[in-house]
Amino acid sequence: MSSAMEVGKKLVELCRAGKSSEAIKTLYSPNIVSIEAGSTHGMPARMEGLAAIQGKNEWWYNNHEVHSGKADGPWPNGDRFVVRFTYDVTPKAGPMAGKRFTMDEAALYTVKDGKIVQEEFFYHMGG
Amino acid sequence: MSSAMEVGKKLVELCRAGKSSEAIKTLYSPNIVSIEAGSTHGMPARMEGLAAIQGKNEWWYNNHEVHSGKADGPWPNGDRFVVRFTYDVTPKAGPMAGKRFTMDEAALYTVKDGKIVQEEFFYHMGG
Repeated sequence: MSSAMEVGKKLVELCRAGKSSEAIKTLYSPNIVSIEAGSTHGMPARMEGLAAIQGKNEWWYNNHEVHSGKADGPWPNGDRFVVRFTYDVTPKAGPMAGKRFTMDEAALYTVKDGKIVQEEFFYHMGG
Repeated sequence: MSSAMEVGKKLVELCRAGKSSEAIKTLYSPNIVSIEAGSTHGMPARMEGLAAIQGKNEWWYNNHEVHSGKADGPWPNGDRFVVRFTYDVTPKAGPMAGKRFTMDEAALYTVKDGKIVQEEFFYHMGG
């Protein structure tokens, strides 16, 4: 069974390779809980279940042009680890459409029985 | 009452200015809980109370020569925020004495009634 550090290393590796969909498929628990810093784009801050999280991931990639991305970490503590993400993106739709910006966030993951059971995203909501 | 984001900004500001002792004094709750990724230097991973955490901070500064430091963030989510720290240090005592290295970690803080009530440090323990 993989430790938080091992799962974190695999996650960072797959994200760096642009394979977040594969990361979700192989590293996430069917009962994954995903918590954003706030509710946006009509999606609730808290979502649950692999299908919902795969849908959110697909939505994000369909609605953003990703110029480059960076994942730093993982930094572990017990059954959890932190990763920092920075993405240079241009939204394709919504009020920010066409406005290139840098997404800068930290994510906290909880691992149980070798799978990620919770992801929490930390970032500043506008303003 | 300060939000997690406001407390986080003050913390990062004071840490960047090398004023971590002042940060503890002004931003921490008397009942602060501090959780390291593991027990080291004969200190337990979990410590509680302002006096113990001030003591740990003093110990760290007395036992490390700090060449430079960097604090990135804060990234907030609700009543919590994350900060990333990198410190270029040389330990003054212990098995690593004289061996300059880069400390690279993430910290997760919980804020209640405008004060930090918990700090958790995420980093890789050797190897």
